Amino acid sequence: MAELRRDPLTRMWVVVTTDHPKGPSDYLPFKPPYQLQDAEGACPFCPGNESMTPEEIFSTQEEGKGWSVRVIPNKYPFFRIEGEFDRRPDGMYDVMEAIGAHEIVVEAPEHHQNLAFMEPSQIRRVLLAYQERLIDLEKDRRFIQFLILKNYPGLFNRHPHSHIIAMPVIPRRIDEEILGILDYYQRKERCIFCDILREEMSGRKRIIIETGHFLIFSPFASRYPFETWIVPKKHRPDFHPLHEDEAEDLSIAIQSLFLKFYKLLSNPPYSLTFHTSPVQERFHRPEYHWHIETRLRIGLREGFEWGTGFFVNPTPPEDAAAFLRKMESD
Amino acid sequence: MAELRRDPLTRMWVVVTTDHPKGPSDYLPFKPPYQLQDAEGACPFCPGNESMTPEEIFSTQEEGKGWSVRVIPNKYPFFRIEGEFDRRPDGMYDVMEAIGAHEIVVEAPEHHQNLAFMEPSQIRRVLLAYQERLIDLEKDRRFIQFLILKNYPGLFNRHPHSHIIAMPVIPRRIDEEILGILDYYQRKERCIFCDILREEMSGRKRIIIETGHFLIFSPFASRYPFETWIVPKKHRPDFHPLHEDEAEDLSIAIQSLFLKFYKLLSNPPYSLTFHTSPVQERFHRPEYHWHIETRLRIGLREGFEWGTGFFVNPTPPEDAAAFLRKMESD
Repeated sequence: MAELRRDPLTRMWVVVTTDHPKGPSDYLPFKPPYQLQDAEGACPFCPGNESMTPEEIFSTQEEGKGWSVRVIPNKYPFFRIEGEFDRRPDGMYDVMEAIGAHEIVVEAPEHHQNLAFMEPSQIRRVLLAYQERLIDLEKDRRFIQFLILKNYPGLFNRHPHSHIIAMPVIPRRIDEEILGILDYYQRKERCIFCDILREEMSGRKRIIIETGHFLIFSPFASRYPFETWIVPKKHRPDFHPLHEDEAEDLSIAIQSLFLKFYKLLSNPPYSLTFHTSPVQERFHRPEYHWHIETRLRIGLREGFEWGTGFFVNPTPPEDAAAFLRKMESD
Repeated sequence: MAELRRDPLTRMWVVVTTDHPKGPSDYLPFKPPYQLQDAEGACPFCPGNESMTPEEIFSTQEEGKGWSVRVIPNKYPFFRIEGEFDRRPDGMYDVMEAIGAHEIVVEAPEHHQNLAFMEPSQIRRVLLAYQERLIDLEKDRRFIQFLILKNYPGLFNRHPHSHIIAMPVIPRRIDEEILGILDYYQRKERCIFCDILREEMSGRKRIIIETGHFLIFSPFASRYPFETWIVPKKHRPDFHPLHEDEAEDLSIAIQSLFLKFYKLLSNPPYSLTFHTSPVQERFHRPEYHWHIETRLRIGLREGFEWGTGFFVNPTPPEDAAAFLRKMESD
């Protein structure tokens, strides 16, 4: 049999296979969904080629070694920083200019890198760069939502990098989360994420890593095999004031998690994304609980999910967590 | 610049590239997202191999030729027909057994087929088979939502087939549509789909094919390049009482549309899905307007969409419709 599990946050039902679940060996030998060749010619993100990119916005520097993390505007942005919103009707429809910012964070000087093998101190520099940029971008009052997104491998360039996007609207997924959080708050006067943390820490079936500041676990209604959430134990709506010791803790946890993935599923492609409260006084939500969601890009049934809005997950989160928990991370 | 366009139905914002839009040549030469080998050995959906499948549920027969369309239970169903719901809590979460039906419609005896080259009379038989099954499945009062889904090429078998799924819950996408429809109805006392049809027929910028009974167009806030909706002109909540002349009209329109896709993008993979009102008296929505949504599986940025809940469409629907409108369909 399979189970229908309801995500308590968004109330979405997910089919989770429980009687003949798929384990790691069912996904191996792993076939990447696409083969990416290194582009011919020089990589614009490599040291020495800085002139190939738009002007640097931010960087961290190591004494005598040059930059360690570098932030630049995306040459091919989805959102542009110049211009007016021009919110207007188009017949019965609504439209506006896509004003926003789209920046690239070059995560390391090395061209080939995986979070699995990055020094935690380097991951920490990347987290710091995210924060610095969010603090700066928040000053532009046109931006109400930040998204931080990383794909491994990158879709257009293998050099490790992530995207920071500042948007004038709240995207669907964050909106759904906020609705779920507010609805739960109204009924219980508690944060649903704080309750999920308590539930997971009492049952422990879906925990992968627990650190002083973060819980890393497979969510109950995982939409994807090995979907994983990294949730701070302390309720805080925004990612961007991350304290020193939290940043250190988080960077060690991230490296451990992705090393587990690397070993368990032989270097799978993955995506991770930071979910944080909208910003600006009018939109900011103190009830929000920031977190990171990660997904392996394996075993997709994207036609089915697109067609039905219904996710089918052949690897129950309890199994996924058990496999990952047991996998050594050093 | 790009535009932010809001889907009037679900209120989701989509980024649509308008200044350097991608046309068909940007997607060509087309690289399929996966290579599917024909499985070794006999195809269970081919004539002569009927004993390889579970027992037939329904078929249409051609005199002296055997079956033309055949419906069988899925051997590997996401939902199973036997058992009890057993709705129950699991800690703070909600869970139930995945009770439902999952049937396969074998669309033709021929192993290699594309809707682009199928006789409209054969497409009509497939539509008839869908209807017959939905009428029968509706008698089981545990099922409240039907989904009909087709992938070309099929993910596990190239023999042309589609899925009929009967579910005990309403999936997210249909739920979102219902919310949008009811909200619009409350404000205007009109059906939003009927209004969209009027808007599209007055502007005509996004129309691909207009027939007596159906309008085929690129939706204003298209999430995917060449996303296309097939909407009946007459308001009706359910697909399954389809009249004779509508079925004929629809089968000709489907063949024309997919031939246009075939010629424009050199045999792209596609998915289509039928959206129809929930069934059973408690859940049925007379305000719903059934329709078909189709998508080409090209140019996906699924990492970005997953991460952000935000769709970026590099081919504006006005361009997509113009390319397809001009493409001859015979």
